[in-house]
Amino acid sequence: MEVIQVLHMNKGNGDTSYAKNSSVQREIISIGKTVIEEALLQLSGNNDIKSMGIADLGCSSGPNTLSVISEIMDVVRAKCGHIGRPVPEFRLFLNDLYSNDFNYLFMSLPAFYKRLKEEKGVASHCFISGVPGSFYARLFPTNTLHFVYSFSSLHWLSQVPVGLESDAVENLNKGKVYISKSSPQSVLDAYSMQFQDDFSAFIKSRSEELVPGGRMVLSFLGRNAIDPAAAEACYQWELLAEALMSLVKEGLIEEEKLDSFNTPYYAPSAEEIKAEIEKEGTFKIDSLEVFDVDWDGGAITDIQTQQGKALIGERVAKTIRAVVESMLESHFQIGQDTMDVLFVKFADIVGTYLSKTRTKYINFVISLVKKG
Amino acid sequence: MEVIQVLHMNKGNGDTSYAKNSSVQREIISIGKTVIEEALLQLSGNNDIKSMGIADLGCSSGPNTLSVISEIMDVVRAKCGHIGRPVPEFRLFLNDLYSNDFNYLFMSLPAFYKRLKEEKGVASHCFISGVPGSFYARLFPTNTLHFVYSFSSLHWLSQVPVGLESDAVENLNKGKVYISKSSPQSVLDAYSMQFQDDFSAFIKSRSEELVPGGRMVLSFLGRNAIDPAAAEACYQWELLAEALMSLVKEGLIEEEKLDSFNTPYYAPSAEEIKAEIEKEGTFKIDSLEVFDVDWDGGAITDIQTQQGKALIGERVAKTIRAVVESMLESHFQIGQDTMDVLFVKFADIVGTYLSKTRTKYINFVISLVKKG
Repeated sequence: MEVIQVLHMNKGNGDTSYAKNSSVQREIISIGKTVIEEALLQLSGNNDIKSMGIADLGCSSGPNTLSVISEIMDVVRAKCGHIGRPVPEFRLFLNDLYSNDFNYLFMSLPAFYKRLKEEKGVASHCFISGVPGSFYARLFPTNTLHFVYSFSSLHWLSQVPVGLESDAVENLNKGKVYISKSSPQSVLDAYSMQFQDDFSAFIKSRSEELVPGGRMVLSFLGRNAIDPAAAEACYQWELLAEALMSLVKEGLIEEEKLDSFNTPYYAPSAEEIKAEIEKEGTFKIDSLEVFDVDWDGGAITDIQTQQGKALIGERVAKTIRAVVESMLESHFQIGQDTMDVLFVKFADIVGTYLSKTRTKYINFVISLVKKG
Repeated sequence: MEVIQVLHMNKGNGDTSYAKNSSVQREIISIGKTVIEEALLQLSGNNDIKSMGIADLGCSSGPNTLSVISEIMDVVRAKCGHIGRPVPEFRLFLNDLYSNDFNYLFMSLPAFYKRLKEEKGVASHCFISGVPGSFYARLFPTNTLHFVYSFSSLHWLSQVPVGLESDAVENLNKGKVYISKSSPQSVLDAYSMQFQDDFSAFIKSRSEELVPGGRMVLSFLGRNAIDPAAAEACYQWELLAEALMSLVKEGLIEEEKLDSFNTPYYAPSAEEIKAEIEKEGTFKIDSLEVFDVDWDGGAITDIQTQQGKALIGERVAKTIRAVVESMLESHFQIGQDTMDVLFVKFADIVGTYLSKTRTKYINFVISLVKKG
């Protein structure tokens, strides 16, 4: 599986689309916004920037994408007004992998520009472009960006860890799709190594693209626990493996297919993150915050009732399906019918689990500044 | 009809797609390439450019798009090698309207980058992005482009000419879809005015975006004749109107729908083009060439036989369908079945016409340089 060609959020705006099922990400963005605002205030206050290069890495194609851009421009405009400097021209780059639904995103731009013009009268100084490609390599010319942000994307690896690929000689992580309590140490090591390689490549690429003094706000899932097999770090995958296994038992999926599947995902600890940033050396960590997020984005509170249990299960399943379906489709080669069966099963398992144990995601928001 | 939201070449790579039916445009590009090469040689020879901004305006989403990019980089690389200068970093911008199939285009990038790396070992210095929007307004930051080219796009207007829109009080061009021998003077004037407004807006926008000494190669359909109703300028539309009229007679399309439809297209004369460039004043015309192009791209030679007639009719119909279907769909609100009937009829009309009169398109290639 070529992650960079396969991985994408579900397209369009139908019932299983990412656009309709990204409330968790919206919740995460809303918490991260104050960190973005702080970073932008520092940036706009300290520099006399005529043309500001801003990149959203892993922008996806839902309503969240343009709402963040809009707020970023508001903050910079307000700050410039406050300190009596001219508002810069905005160069806005929306990045995601090649198979992202850029068409959907671009089709929402005319309305966005129209609103911008009506509300602020400034559409002409905002240039939005799409930059397809992996953020684990160079995406932009040298020294051209002032601000980079990435939300809910950096927990995706550039590939399934080396040694755990679907065509590996031996399946080291049978019956599981990610690190699990039962995974051998070699699986944990492979995941941790892949994260280190990827995250350091990310930091190095951005270091070349950002101007000195440029800033970066990164928000992605991770873990507080030292143990990468702690529930907060992996239990959504544990339950997905359980759902897949039940389809194996029903003969809808071959067992070998499950045994050879591992997800290109990693929930790092703060220490692992800091280690790569410090090793690379060009960024200073301005702040690192941790918070937890409900699997459903916190919308459903009453989960003890039968109805509440079903509702939260379904909601979480939809949220996860919008994100992982492209990968599952590519590896398991299953049609929509079997996919539906899988996620009905998964919703049921998730509902039952959450009614007993309210495991949450751990999310980091890290603010970085490139040394001058 | 909002042209900037509706107009797009047929998506994907199916039988009626633009990707599979763009041989006329390929033919036009192949003729224009020598002009591009000459412009690039001048550009690379006279300037010490470290980062070269290049934009394809109206890039569409077929195989032609990336092949031109590839050749542009080859020319610049060869020239730099020849005069002993370092090869610049390439910033490549692919522009088209919001509804263009950018997804299809972006999905072909991994293979493109791979080939580039294998053949030239230089993928890392080439940054490709998609810039959705109308080229009749600003698309790029001030003074950031070195070379702009646009193939087979500038004959599309930004809108149906003022007074000829589908919701106009009176239908001035009944039974026709473009300028025709029977059109009143007001129709000719409306088209010519719209071209002047649009083309001058295009020139002004590019003048702000290109660096001094920057160059532009524009290739689009036009006419040699003074009369805008000459066959070379409009007969494809005359025949399309005929096909639409036959569907009106069969009751498949309402007559009022045909009467209120006018295409946002204009085939200008060299004089009209030069007038706008000179009025704006910042560009010098380096060269202006005219050549004719067969309606089918010149592939079919034997058109006197029954089979040849059918073949060329079908081929021309497919080429035109790939380009105009989105507009027809939006205005006439007809489904695929009726669309198929329309283009079978059109193919027949075109085949019969071309077997008697071999009318060709007139195409301009204009090379411009921004004054220093």
